Amino acid sequence: MRDVIELTKDLISKASVTPEDAGCQLLMQDILAPLGFNNETMVFEDTTNLWARKGDTKPVFCFAGHTDVVPTGPVEKWQFDPFIPTEKDGFLFGRGTADMKSSLAAMLCATERFVKDYPDHKGSIAFLVTSDEEGPFINGTTRVIDTLEARNEKIDYCIVGEPSSTKTTGDIIKNGRRGSITGELTVKGVQGHVAYPHLVKNPIHLFAPALAELSGTVWDEGNAFFPPTSFQVSNINAGTGATNVVPGEIHVNFNFRFSTELTAEEIKSRVTAILDKHGLDYSINWILSGNPFITEAGSLVDACKASISQIMGFETELSTAGGTSDGRFIAPTGAQVIELGPENGTIHKVDECVNIANVKALEKIYYQVLVNLLA
Amino acid sequence: MRDVIELTKDLISKASVTPEDAGCQLLMQDILAPLGFNNETMVFEDTTNLWARKGDTKPVFCFAGHTDVVPTGPVEKWQFDPFIPTEKDGFLFGRGTADMKSSLAAMLCATERFVKDYPDHKGSIAFLVTSDEEGPFINGTTRVIDTLEARNEKIDYCIVGEPSSTKTTGDIIKNGRRGSITGELTVKGVQGHVAYPHLVKNPIHLFAPALAELSGTVWDEGNAFFPPTSFQVSNINAGTGATNVVPGEIHVNFNFRFSTELTAEEIKSRVTAILDKHGLDYSINWILSGNPFITEAGSLVDACKASISQIMGFETELSTAGGTSDGRFIAPTGAQVIELGPENGTIHKVDECVNIANVKALEKIYYQVLVNLLA
Ligand SMILES: [Zn+2]
Ligand SMILES: [Zn+2]
Repeated sequence: MRDVIELTKDLISKASVTPEDAGCQLLMQDILAPLGFNNETMVFEDTTNLWARKGDTKPVFCFAGHTDVVPTGPVEKWQFDPFIPTEKDGFLFGRGTADMKSSLAAMLCATERFVKDYPDHKGSIAFLVTSDEEGPFINGTTRVIDTLEARNEKIDYCIVGEPSSTKTTGDIIKNGRRGSITGELTVKGVQGHVAYPHLVKNPIHLFAPALAELSGTVWDEGNAFFPPTSFQVSNINAGTGATNVVPGEIHVNFNFRFSTELTAEEIKSRVTAILDKHGLDYSINWILSGNPFITEAGSLVDACKASISQIMGFETELSTAGGTSDGRFIAPTGAQVIELGPENGTIHKVDECVNIANVKALEKIYYQVLVNLLA
Repeated sequence: MRDVIELTKDLISKASVTPEDAGCQLLMQDILAPLGFNNETMVFEDTTNLWARKGDTKPVFCFAGHTDVVPTGPVEKWQFDPFIPTEKDGFLFGRGTADMKSSLAAMLCATERFVKDYPDHKGSIAFLVTSDEEGPFINGTTRVIDTLEARNEKIDYCIVGEPSSTKTTGDIIKNGRRGSITGELTVKGVQGHVAYPHLVKNPIHLFAPALAELSGTVWDEGNAFFPPTSFQVSNINAGTGATNVVPGEIHVNFNFRFSTELTAEEIKSRVTAILDKHGLDYSINWILSGNPFITEAGSLVDACKASISQIMGFETELSTAGGTSDGRFIAPTGAQVIELGPENGTIHKVDECVNIANVKALEKIYYQVLVNLLA
């Protein structure tokens, strides 16, 4: 059988920094075509996407992921060339080893083995792969999903191969994610010299009580699946640099990570109500990165839990913590979505690596999920 | 007699951008020496200062001022070369015409005329001139005053030639100035990713209630001579630029313009009490630019008021508004200090200019003050 570590190395060797695919998807197609997959390449602008499907019956089980990787950062700080996969002490080093080329390799190897072991399996198997997950996510998964929705092609179960684990493979799986919305706020005042306070309207002073209220607000209490919604100001800037000039504007960026107890519209209206209450002259630009989603329970959660228990010998933990993922584009179609992938301790960092034994375990977990759902 | 406008032009032609004197003080010495002044040049680091005194009896009347000028700004926006004094429509254009080479010329011409008219005048006349008033004011008036204080040489009456007027010469004179103290504050938190709010301590949020309290505080009510003390934040900056990172620190610059109801030490202790009350981890760097000073009443105020009334035909107005001046270094020695100079509408700007008729009036006002005090 195909070796999951060798395949991971082949993918690492292709320097596919966002939005480049660098031939990764062609390599995947070469593996999937002989197994009976119909490969459909969808190019949107600078982004290459792959929709590959075997079978035309339900349920549709989909592996989702991305071939692109984040930039290497300072190459001289790496132990090894980030695009020459290198083994050391049981770990495989290289940009994308954890996020998420080992997942892609494990999905492919598991699928190859499953199709050979269960040629008459139920339903369909699909791959949804993009090359812009780490980028602006405009031309990737979201547009593939739009295309599928337009032709009423539905995914029932989806495993996203994002590195969900912490200490060992499968210790944590993500059954949802918080929503994320960013506000770019400008509060206006009147500029002037500090020596003439009656001629200025200091926007920093005007905004201060509203900032205190926003910072002190409890937005919700969270629920069984989500921690409380969190508000964080990431950037605040006002001033000309001179210490004797009162600036005319203050610029503030803030971000909400929000639970299913709130909607983006509710957040917007509560924020603007606070700003209005304080009588501010402001403009605000909202950027919704994703609504919260949750796969509370069902066949996919059960299949993943059972598979991890069978292969790893422990009970996995469901979580909705952490950043966003492309799962937010897939879940709204009605699919059950779980993120299940390798340990995330080194992702996006210098010396990104995976534990080789854990990658082999991940292949077995994916295989067992296919068995549990489609055998 | 010497023409005040020609002398102003001679001074304008010398491009004395801070800390350059460019020979202005030598020109002044050449005028003062024949009148019986003892000229003492005091060079401290990059700064040239002049202490010139005629007579050795009390009271000591002093004209104070500066030969340096601020940079021209964009030369192409000037109507005329800023260092080629040019008359147009009754105005004289050039860098330093209002701040404050016309004052220096008027002081010199008034003194020359007074000494010739009243050879046996009372007391002493002095000039205290620096070339760094527009700069860091480290090696200028403050060090001349230190030198005089060390040898117990006292000024009784001092007219600073700063452009105090608004619509016409003498409409406003400054009998004091507010104090100015700046704080450079850093509030510390713990940096992290917005998706992991339990791992961060957002310094923007921590500081917000303290900022609201500082902005909302009434520091004093002012008094008969001063408006209420004013607090202004001039710069506030935090953030990495990324919208998903909570910064580790927030940097804040603020400035107090304070009345004689407060001292710098009281301000420091009230600010730190507010920061401490909010439990902040912070560091603060204080820069005291000047304590407030006031010449409430006395011979100098009376002489100036009478002189303006005699020459201009209106009652002047006493004010403590506006920025700082070198008067803050002279007043603490016990001297009565008044700022009396030309209109300030164009100072530090492109196309700086003075009304020629008003400069001639200013010479007469200075002459009359000398008469009123020393004849
Ligand atoms: Zn990823
Ligand atoms: Zn000046």
